[in-house]
Amino acid sequence: MKVLVTGVDGYSGWPLALRLLAEGHEVVGLDNFATRRRVREVGSWSATPIPSFPRRLAAVQAAFGRSLTFYRGDLGNYRFVDDVLARERPDAIVHLAEQRSAPYSMIDVHHAVATQVENLTGTLHLLYAIRDRCPEAHLVKMGTMGEYGTPNVEIPEGFFEIEYRGRRDTLPFPRSAGSWYHWSKVFDSGDVMYATRIWQLRSTDVMQGVIYGIRTPEITQDALLTRFDFDETWGTALNRFIVQAILGLPITPYGKGGQTRGFIALEDSMQSLLLALRNPAKPGEYRVFNQFDAAYSVNQLAETVAAIAREFGLSPTIEHPPDPRVEAEEHFYAPQHDHLAALGYRRSRELGEVIREIFRDLRRFRRRLEAKRLQVLPRTQWRSAPPTRSPTE
Amino acid sequence: MKVLVTGVDGYSGWPLALRLLAEGHEVVGLDNFATRRRVREVGSWSATPIPSFPRRLAAVQAAFGRSLTFYRGDLGNYRFVDDVLARERPDAIVHLAEQRSAPYSMIDVHHAVATQVENLTGTLHLLYAIRDRCPEAHLVKMGTMGEYGTPNVEIPEGFFEIEYRGRRDTLPFPRSAGSWYHWSKVFDSGDVMYATRIWQLRSTDVMQGVIYGIRTPEITQDALLTRFDFDETWGTALNRFIVQAILGLPITPYGKGGQTRGFIALEDSMQSLLLALRNPAKPGEYRVFNQFDAAYSVNQLAETVAAIAREFGLSPTIEHPPDPRVEAEEHFYAPQHDHLAALGYRRSRELGEVIREIFRDLRRFRRRLEAKRLQVLPRTQWRSAPPTRSPTE
Repeated sequence: MKVLVTGVDGYSGWPLALRLLAEGHEVVGLDNFATRRRVREVGSWSATPIPSFPRRLAAVQAAFGRSLTFYRGDLGNYRFVDDVLARERPDAIVHLAEQRSAPYSMIDVHHAVATQVENLTGTLHLLYAIRDRCPEAHLVKMGTMGEYGTPNVEIPEGFFEIEYRGRRDTLPFPRSAGSWYHWSKVFDSGDVMYATRIWQLRSTDVMQGVIYGIRTPEITQDALLTRFDFDETWGTALNRFIVQAILGLPITPYGKGGQTRGFIALEDSMQSLLLALRNPAKPGEYRVFNQFDAAYSVNQLAETVAAIAREFGLSPTIEHPPDPRVEAEEHFYAPQHDHLAALGYRRSRELGEVIREIFRDLRRFRRRLEAKRLQVLPRTQWRSAPPTRSPTE
Repeated sequence: MKVLVTGVDGYSGWPLALRLLAEGHEVVGLDNFATRRRVREVGSWSATPIPSFPRRLAAVQAAFGRSLTFYRGDLGNYRFVDDVLARERPDAIVHLAEQRSAPYSMIDVHHAVATQVENLTGTLHLLYAIRDRCPEAHLVKMGTMGEYGTPNVEIPEGFFEIEYRGRRDTLPFPRSAGSWYHWSKVFDSGDVMYATRIWQLRSTDVMQGVIYGIRTPEITQDALLTRFDFDETWGTALNRFIVQAILGLPITPYGKGGQTRGFIALEDSMQSLLLALRNPAKPGEYRVFNQFDAAYSVNQLAETVAAIAREFGLSPTIEHPPDPRVEAEEHFYAPQHDHLAALGYRRSRELGEVIREIFRDLRRFRRRLEAKRLQVLPRTQWRSAPPTRSPTE
């Protein structure tokens, strides 16, 4: 199978490319290196040192005896997108090339607009190019569980049958996102659903839970490592908690800490994407996967990190700063996630086991964490207006 | 009350400005003249001749003894938006400045992207400028009934209480739009709802039905006329049917003709907007109005137009070309519209009466219709790929 991975330089794009190569697939990658630039923009870096892309490709060649075809370019440039799809005509496209940080999108108006415009434009460009160049290709689009918000009912996988005033219909489950970034993913979902319908494309919309972990079996040397972001803009809560524990800073779940989300290990996210690719949607089918393994509250994450930190001889404390986000700090949360299980998904990594692995890996990169210790604390406020600055494309 | 009308040069923006002036309000207008350019782009024009904007302003001055404050500029330019709001600090903003044609958005990838990016960016820019410059201002945002699609259940006004698997919540009603344009309005609704929540703004999201008619009481001379678009890209089905009848062309409801939508007379749309302005949303309130008067199928419209055409001595025929859109040609349709009625809305114009008025008005402009008779027939296809051309900003 020939798979195009957009955002191949990113946190999950890179290990996905390695996995696909390891399984014998042909891989085409595409990136504009926006995440590298934007992590620099907020004054941070990945805990794991990430080689230049040519070095990454050389490391792949050395490890696998073959490499991937890479195009440097921007999904905002339609001619580029159309050219790549016309030349490569992939069997599947895993679309990961989007601005992925909620706090980044909340910095100011320019970051809000850049996030929504860039994500929406890239997806629309891909949809049109698929229609014109490879209409049989299976699009696997990275969304987020955050599209749903935290309703007081179970969250189905994309659609639900309802009765309202005596009549029945199956409708998209209402979305209610919690940042301009999360809304951009809601918008993408609308466009993918609609293009699939009018052009009879094949699509899988992945409502991705928060991914944790650094390692997959293909990452056998440092030159093959993927990113590990830990600053307040680019790092997940779990990543920040681990780094806070290592640096002797308080672990800081925001507010009451009852905010609950779906999580999945990096390795199991790879497993899920491969299951989607091996079992493509049918022509005209828009399919939604709630791609997470288990739900945890930030308090549960903080306590788990603290307990494991003590195993490593650390003495963590937990503090609760005011929540800079506008969100429910305690709520019901019960999303369904049966579609992947029906395709054979089985959890392969436990949360604690992965957290221990991260602690072990990060010991070698402690100086990179120390250098950016001020970046771990929250600065971006959902409610107020920090001074305007220009986003990095 | 000082009201900023974005899109003041447009079909409903112009009569709204006149109405507000007539009622003694202070009016600030803003436009980039994109609709004028884009109607030229598809080779058409308004049946009613529209003077240059300076001439429009002079006619207003002559008719009302005072005029409106006008800013020429683009909502895509944040500095412009911020400057206007900082200088004017309006009490209310009626946001009509968006690309409003579904067929235009379906021309090709560039028109799709231009529509979604422009509409979304303008709304986000306005929301941030309101937050920073006039957070007490009431935003009345023009959306469309088309955001809802045609579900098999009643359509509530924005939100509905549901029971799902034994639990209850009040959630946004799922959106399911029928063109890239309609999706852009769905995206706007998400952003307005979210900004209202996190910044405690005041907003009314108007799910506008299809507006019909040329006249309001303030349009007392030709220099004050508003647009009447009748080509396949910019004209509504009703406008096209009337012009087809006048030109001796068959009236062409697409497909089976059971496509049913909500409609409202221009005068009653003005009545509704004024009701919204006089009864603003509260701080933090995101309020949705389904702003239509009655639902008609395109077959009902075609038959009504044909009957009235015969009163005018014409001999109309009705044909059913294949539907170029992807939509249900027969379906259930029952949207609620109680919110405006609760504020005192009462229908002031009947469909037939307004259609007769349009027939009378258009007799004077018959040569302008003749000159563009080829523009009335459908060309834009929802399913296939016409050659790519550049959109007009």
